[in-house]
Amino acid sequence: MTAVNRQFRLSHRPIGEATRENFEFVESAVPEPEDGQIVVQNEFISLDPAMRGWMNEGKSYVPPVGIGETMRAGAAGKVLATKNPRFNTGDSVVGLFGVQDFAVSDGKGVTVVDTRIAPLSAYLGVLGMPGMTAYFGLFEAGEYRDGDTVVVSGAAGAVGSVVGQLAKIRGSRVVGIAGGADKCRHVVEDLGFDACIDYKSGNLKAALREHCPKGVDLYFDNVGGEILDTVLTQIRMHARIVICGAISQYNNTTPVKGPSNYLALLVNRGTMRGMVVFDYAKRYGEAITQMAQWIAEGKLHYREDIVDDLATFPETLGKLFRGENTGKLLLRARAA
Amino acid sequence: MTAVNRQFRLSHRPIGEATRENFEFVESAVPEPEDGQIVVQNEFISLDPAMRGWMNEGKSYVPPVGIGETMRAGAAGKVLATKNPRFNTGDSVVGLFGVQDFAVSDGKGVTVVDTRIAPLSAYLGVLGMPGMTAYFGLFEAGEYRDGDTVVVSGAAGAVGSVVGQLAKIRGSRVVGIAGGADKCRHVVEDLGFDACIDYKSGNLKAALREHCPKGVDLYFDNVGGEILDTVLTQIRMHARIVICGAISQYNNTTPVKGPSNYLALLVNRGTMRGMVVFDYAKRYGEAITQMAQWIAEGKLHYREDIVDDLATFPETLGKLFRGENTGKLLLRARAA
Repeated sequence: MTAVNRQFRLSHRPIGEATRENFEFVESAVPEPEDGQIVVQNEFISLDPAMRGWMNEGKSYVPPVGIGETMRAGAAGKVLATKNPRFNTGDSVVGLFGVQDFAVSDGKGVTVVDTRIAPLSAYLGVLGMPGMTAYFGLFEAGEYRDGDTVVVSGAAGAVGSVVGQLAKIRGSRVVGIAGGADKCRHVVEDLGFDACIDYKSGNLKAALREHCPKGVDLYFDNVGGEILDTVLTQIRMHARIVICGAISQYNNTTPVKGPSNYLALLVNRGTMRGMVVFDYAKRYGEAITQMAQWIAEGKLHYREDIVDDLATFPETLGKLFRGENTGKLLLRARAA
Repeated sequence: MTAVNRQFRLSHRPIGEATRENFEFVESAVPEPEDGQIVVQNEFISLDPAMRGWMNEGKSYVPPVGIGETMRAGAAGKVLATKNPRFNTGDSVVGLFGVQDFAVSDGKGVTVVDTRIAPLSAYLGVLGMPGMTAYFGLFEAGEYRDGDTVVVSGAAGAVGSVVGQLAKIRGSRVVGIAGGADKCRHVVEDLGFDACIDYKSGNLKAALREHCPKGVDLYFDNVGGEILDTVLTQIRMHARIVICGAISQYNNTTPVKGPSNYLALLVNRGTMRGMVVFDYAKRYGEAITQMAQWIAEGKLHYREDIVDDLATFPETLGKLFRGENTGKLLLRARAA
């Protein structure tokens, strides 16, 4: 093993899709910890839709990645060296370790995880940010009520797949929306949704009418654009729409498409609410305990799409926006 | 007084703005009450933005007005004849009596009002649907919190003028948005808003920044379109947006403009909620008692724009959509 740290650094802010040209791929020395720091050897790097937004200049819920900085990413790995009393060498940890082999951290926002409960990679997916987003988005921001007919877009993705399964566990009728027959088959057969609509084939509105004959009580939106607009035509009285993301719009070079059917909120006394998972950080433990139990009981399933080469980062990230992944998309860093 | 009932009946559904061509103006005999019915002589007919929607075919929060039916409208008048034990001749009443001189009613949805508390016309404005919409829209749908910076569009209109005054009574910083210098002067000088932005002159975004330096906590939207989209750029964390109406969009012949900045809801964990005043019908009494007291104390003001000729209905309704009214727009029916 050569002691080299490969890093993707943001070199130019993308306009539209992020490509290799937006990054510098550099090799540097493996860092040593200073007082209070740890050095983490990454094993898995999480690829998430939100990363596209972090590359843009301007105000958002977190500051943008600076030009020349290592690209921000959630990651999971092991503590290689520590001068921070909270951590021991060999601890399995999750944090914003970036798209690189080795990260130096002051320990803020770093969580030690228990790999006896679930494998390390799960802490980037079903028991990580996507899972937390699903749990608190559905039960808190979405004010889930028993009996709700729940629709979720990006149903084969890391967040959507969990949203739907959680609502099924609670006994709801759950309809997914995903792109392509293979994903839809996975969502129904492996994840147990009542139905999954392939938005790429046929009429979404007609399919929603068929599968949600009473209308939609809770819509969990990961995609925005035309799909959000179409679901709005099918909401029921007092419907809740959780705005979790808008992956269809993140690479836009034209203005974002606003939901022109938003007045359905008025007619139906509906609520549309934005959510950011970090607001629930104090309650992650509760969600992890509950979801780990459901995994152990075979009630909650997850799939990972692991690409085995950190060097492919820009191209692998593109898979997310082209909808080519099923389940949680991960990059494997240098083998631990 | 000739015993003739003048009526505007919907004859053709409008495309775009409603004009005289969409109505039949007919004269018929004054009705006689049958068992259980009352006949009301209208004094004031309320002109409201929602009337445009009632002319469209298709599902909304109330059924559309049928072709050949008298145009639906809130109105206030006196009971002329009664075969319903709930009412006495001479009672002052408010109900959906339509655009006509005399209405027959089974008494459902008809309220006897106390003209010692406030003049009859006030029960179509500040103590009627617009006032109830303002009260429950701000305090319930908007989850008003002390200290909120409140922005309201249509600030010189029947609803907006009350929203802003209620928030001022509770001690908020209140900024109105209205069209034209005269309206803005009225909103600040007569109604006591902290500021009013003339959206027709200059840069709304810059003016919002100036007048809401901490951002917008609660936006009460009566207009939709570009104004909603611009306010979204200025919302604060946990902002609430009440969707009460979208008068800028009601005469559209092209699709409604959706709020392309709706992802500000995500970044700011904001909530956008539609409201329909009828949902609060059981609590109107509480609001009327409270607001009548504020009127008596000189804390709550209202202005009426009364057009003295029922025969001008289509043209007078057009004033609403051109923003030519200041305060509650009413038609006076045949003098009582």
